[in-house]
Amino acid sequence: MSLVIPDSFQDLLAIQVASLTTQGQDGFPQTSAVWFLNDDDGKLKVSLNVSRQKTKNLEKNPHATLFFIDPVNPYRTLEIRALVEIERDPDYIFASKVGAKYNADVRTFDPPGATRIVATFNPVKINTYGS
Amino acid sequence: MSLVIPDSFQDLLAIQVASLTTQGQDGFPQTSAVWFLNDDDGKLKVSLNVSRQKTKNLEKNPHATLFFIDPVNPYRTLEIRALVEIERDPDYIFASKVGAKYNADVRTFDPPGATRIVATFNPVKINTYGS
Repeated sequence: MSLVIPDSFQDLLAIQVASLTTQGQDGFPQTSAVWFLNDDDGKLKVSLNVSRQKTKNLEKNPHATLFFIDPVNPYRTLEIRALVEIERDPDYIFASKVGAKYNADVRTFDPPGATRIVATFNPVKINTYGS
Repeated sequence: MSLVIPDSFQDLLAIQVASLTTQGQDGFPQTSAVWFLNDDDGKLKVSLNVSRQKTKNLEKNPHATLFFIDPVNPYRTLEIRALVEIERDPDYIFASKVGAKYNADVRTFDPPGATRIVATFNPVKINTYGS
């Protein structure tokens, strides 16, 4: 077990999207592609609209997994199982940081009156595959 | 809710690997990249070594999710939530079929005396994203 992403897999943090899996109320894992930020404090974070099912899932069950596949070599992967901490982001401060990374205005994706949270991934187990 | 993969996403079944998420005994979703076969009966199937954690997870909890990301456009994804049916494959009959697809001898991946199962995905919900 390791709580550190090996140097040889750090490049995967530069891919466009990670696959986020939360635990759904229907008893199934729920997976979707998400933008993410490797924040200044060294933690992986995701900005989520509170209306989304994955946000509701995380609020009920913070056990989640981020998965990265090397787009060039799909046999090279990084799995981060984490306890997710949720903080409100009513002023889109963190969301704007993610938007800056992806050169997008995150507000335009959300319905009027929407609000966002920051999901911070605190790793419990990190697995790599391939080399 | 749909139990059919739309025609416009069928091409994703031609990618190299899918991300399989099972529910781990540690309470976390467990995700890894897997080979898969879109079998003659129209069902998605995966060959797994019985010694692997994901196999043990599926034996205890058949709720699992297969996730496909378009390697060219990572904003185009296909999520298949399914109840997984497990059948023994002691003679590597199905495993050889998967091996033929990937031009590999699956037996060489397994320790001596290993045995395999066929995991068949019976979709309960199919979600697509992007176009």
